[in-house]
Parts: sequence; structure tokens; C-alpha cells
Amino acid sequence: MIGGARSGKSRHAEALVRSAGRERVYLATAQVWDEEMAERVRLHRADRPQGWQTIEEPYAIAPLLARGFDGKPVLLDCLTLWLTNVLLASDDPSLSGMPSPEQACETLLATLATCPGPLVLVSNEVGLGIVPDNALSRRFRDLAGRLHQNVAALADRVDLVTAGIPLSLKPQLALAPVAEYP
Amino acid sequence: MIGGARSGKSRHAEALVRSAGRERVYLATAQVWDEEMAERVRLHRADRPQGWQTIEEPYAIAPLLARGFDGKPVLLDCLTLWLTNVLLASDDPSLSGMPSPEQACETLLATLATCPGPLVLVSNEVGLGIVPDNALSRRFRDLAGRLHQNVAALADRVDLVTAGIPLSLKPQLALAPVAEYP
Amino acid sequence: MIGGARSGKSRHAEALVRSAGRERVYLATAQVWDEEMAERVRLHRADRPQGWQTIEEPYAIAPLLARGFDGKPVLLDCLTLWLTNVLLASDDPSLSGMPSPEQACETLLATLATCPGPLVLVSNEVGLGIVPDNALSRRFRDLAGRLHQNVAALADRVDLVTAGIPLSLKPQLALAPVAEYP
Repeated sequence: MIGGARSGKSRHAEALVRSAGRERVYLATAQVWDEEMAERVRLHRADRPQGWQTIEEPYAIAPLLARGFDGKPVLLDCLTLWLTNVLLASDDPSLSGMPSPEQACETLLATLATCPGPLVLVSNEVGLGIVPDNALSRRFRDLAGRLHQNVAALADRVDLVTAGIPLSLKPQLALAPVAEYP
Repeated sequence: MIGGARSGKSRHAEALVRSAGRERVYLATAQVWDEEMAERVRLHRADRPQGWQTIEEPYAIAPLLARGFDGKPVLLDCLTLWLTNVLLASDDPSLSGMPSPEQACETLLATLATCPGPLVLVSNEVGLGIVPDNALSRRFRDLAGRLHQNVAALADRVDLVTAGIPLSLKPQLALAPVAEYP
Repeated sequence: MIGGARSGKSRHAEALVRSAGRERVYLATAQVWDEEMAERVRLHRADRPQGWQTIEEPYAIAPLLARGFDGKPVLLDCLTLWLTNVLLASDDPSLSGMPSPEQACETLLATLATCPGPLVLVSNEVGLGIVPDNALSRRFRDLAGRLHQNVAALADRVDLVTAGIPLSLKPQLALAPVAEYP
């Protein structure tokens, strides 16, 4: 479930998870840095329907996913916030022993490859604007793009959400042979 | 008709409106702030085919749409410029009595829900880049994303235009059940 | 082959070109300005499979494409870097006699219209973020959008790549009449 800011991706992801079981887990990666973020988290919580077990974990999502939740469907919201946390933590001298973002992504991908149970991941597409003017944003954009490619390769289903409307990227009706010229 | 900058969305919207009737109304929301904007408006006007009644209105588009134009098809170009005007006006102390952007969006949506006649709206997707580094841009991005979701929910048809090519988001061939896992 | 940063567009373009012939030409437009760019080019080179003839040309790609490569399939990676080079060069007083970006695009489009042999172009979609706050980026975004529209109109096939997954924009299954209301 990939999409832009305020595209409706979380809402669609929630609908998917609801269809997969009556007891659901909401794995939230948002970290509250400031007032604006606190308000965003508050709005997201208010939007979330009742009947979800919420777990907030900004960094160590791989062990949680590996352990599973007794077969309950899981919604992870969202990958790009997790990646932001991991990227900033790896640069923070006060947090020792944090893995590099590249290592963290590898660990996550290895976990996803063997992950039990229904799992829906939400992530932000961030690579369709002008090249950002600072190096940290460019690094983030590259990391996010590679992560999205690798996660999508593992996923059974990938949707791109625009204006609240999901478009199925995978599976996809083969309209033209994908890897043959032209 | 949603798309990126210079994606060809206005051109496709014009083609749609032309197909809907011989007398057409062009409702332009652009406001000329500076030389660059004046040049953009000039180019848009030069691109526009003859035979359109042009109305320029940066703020009060809801009453115009509610009144209708005797069944003539209408092209509104564009929602994101209107939202920019409304957002900036709500922050401008010299313009008293302007509604908040949230209120203005609600009024517009209520009007669209009952709006007579063929209407094609053009808007810019702005949520697929890196998170902007200033709060006003983030607020605009959130407002635009929510507005797009709500307008798309009301619309009979939603197209995403990329490189001049429209992709139908709604109606859409259901390739996979949209709200069921996976 | 259009897509965001790190969307996997180069990889898919390479697969297309490989399907079109055993001897292939890689036409690289990247220019190494700094360490970061050098690293990007190095990674792209390492990703590239063996068996490609590589030509690096930041500006004069039209004459190369016009001449052709004895029917060998060509991968041009990428249009947006070429456009960046052309835009910056036109503003650089030390480089006299460079065409304007508009002229360079016209020459390229005229060449593409008659270009022999299999050719796959890679380009970055850059128009789906917030309006950039500097005039050069806005000009680049407009130029890139127009170039994409015109190149796409000439192409037999256009794919939008997201998270490594190509979506065929052209040819496209006509789900709804494209230029008729609604």
C-alpha cells in the first residue's frame, strides 16, 4: 500500500486488514518529535476504528514481525516513518549500537521474506518530486526507493493509492509484455 | 483529472469538456502574483481553444458552481491554485472574513455533491515528493490530499495524467478485490 | 520508461533493451559534478550487466541517436539528467554557443521522430511534489513535463515504474473512453 501524503493509503490498508480477521494489530512507527507530529499522531489515532491492539515501536519492528501475533492480521503504518527513525538514529551519537539504515533494511527484508500471517505495510512514495536540495533528503529518498522495490518484490499485492483510490500494481493485468521491446 | 506539473492534465480536461457540449465555460482560479505567474496564465490562455466563456475567480467558486451555467459544460482549472488562494487569504490580516481553508473545502464539497451539469476539475497531485521543510507547504499538502480524496469520492470519473497520458483511476477494471486481503 | 527516484526504472529499461538484441548500446548522460554524483555513477555502472557498449555524452545526444548504432538497441539513461545538463549549460557564460533548453528539446524530438532502431529512454517524473521554491527548479520541472509529454506522444510504449513495478501507460487497455465526458 504505497501512496503520497494524505492519499488515503492508511484507510485502505485498514480496510484490507479488517477483511483479514476480527482481532487486529496496529503497529505504529511514528515518533513524536514536536507539536505538529503529536497532532498528526492524534488525528491518526482518532481515525483508527476500535478493536485494534496498538503497538508503538519506532525502531525494532523486525523482531515483532518475526514473532508474529498468533495469526492476527497486522497493519504496519508506516515504513517511511520507520526508515526516517532509523536514518536519524544512525546519525545520532547519543544512540550507540544502532544499525545503519542499510543493515536495518536488510534485516527487515529478511524477516518479511519468512514472516507469518497477514501483514499490510503502508509507505509513502517520495521520489516523484524535484531532487531535494539537501544530502540527507536525497539519501532518504534513495533508501526509501530501494526499500520499496525490495518490499514490493516480496509482496503478494502492491497498491498505489491516489486521491483515495487504490490502483493495483501487483497483481496486474498484463496489457503488454512487460520485459520485451517495445 | 489529477496530475503533476506540466503533465498535460489541462489539455485532457479541455478535450473532455469539448466532448460534453459546444458552448463551454472555463473557470480559471489562477491569481497573478508576479511576472512568472503572469507568464504562466498568458501561456495557458494562448493554449486554450476559441469558443470558451472565461470566468476568473480566485476564491468564490462554490456559488458559481451552485448557480450553474445553463447546462453548459464547465472546466475548473485548477483546484490546487484555488486552495493556495484560500490558504493564503485565510492568513492575510488585510482580508477579513475569509473562511478557513477547511471551511472553504467543506463548502465546495457540499456544492459539488449537488452540482448540476457536466463539470471537469483539474488539480495537481503534490504529495509524492519528500516531506516539505516548511509548515505552510506541509499544511497545503495535507489539505490538498484530503480535498482530492473527497472530490474523487464524489466524481464519476478520475484520471491520473502522466506524460500527457491519462490513466483511469475511476471507473477501474477490478483486477483484484480492492478491500480484501491480500 | 518514466518513474521516480530509485523506482527501478533503469533496471526495467535494461531488461527491455536486452530483449531487443544481444549487442546493446548504453548512452549515459550523467555528468560527474561532485563526489556524490561520482558514487551514483559508480553504482549505476556496477549494476549494469556486461555486454554493453557504453557511450557517455552529457549534451549532444541527438546527433548520436540520428546516426544510429547499426541497428543495435540503445538505452538512454536518462533524459532528465540530459535536460539538467542542457539547462545549466545554457546559463553558463563559459560555454558559448549552447542552444537554449527549448531548442535542444526541439532538436531531440525531431530526431526521435525519425530515429532508427530500438531505443528505450529512461526519465524521472519530477512534477508530483510541492511547487519548488526556486525559479530554476520550477523552470526545470516545466521543461521536463513538456518533454515527457512530447516524447510519450512519439513512443510506441510508455511505462510508469513504481516500487520496481512497471505499469503500462501506453498501450493501455481502454477501460473508459479517454476523451469523452465523463
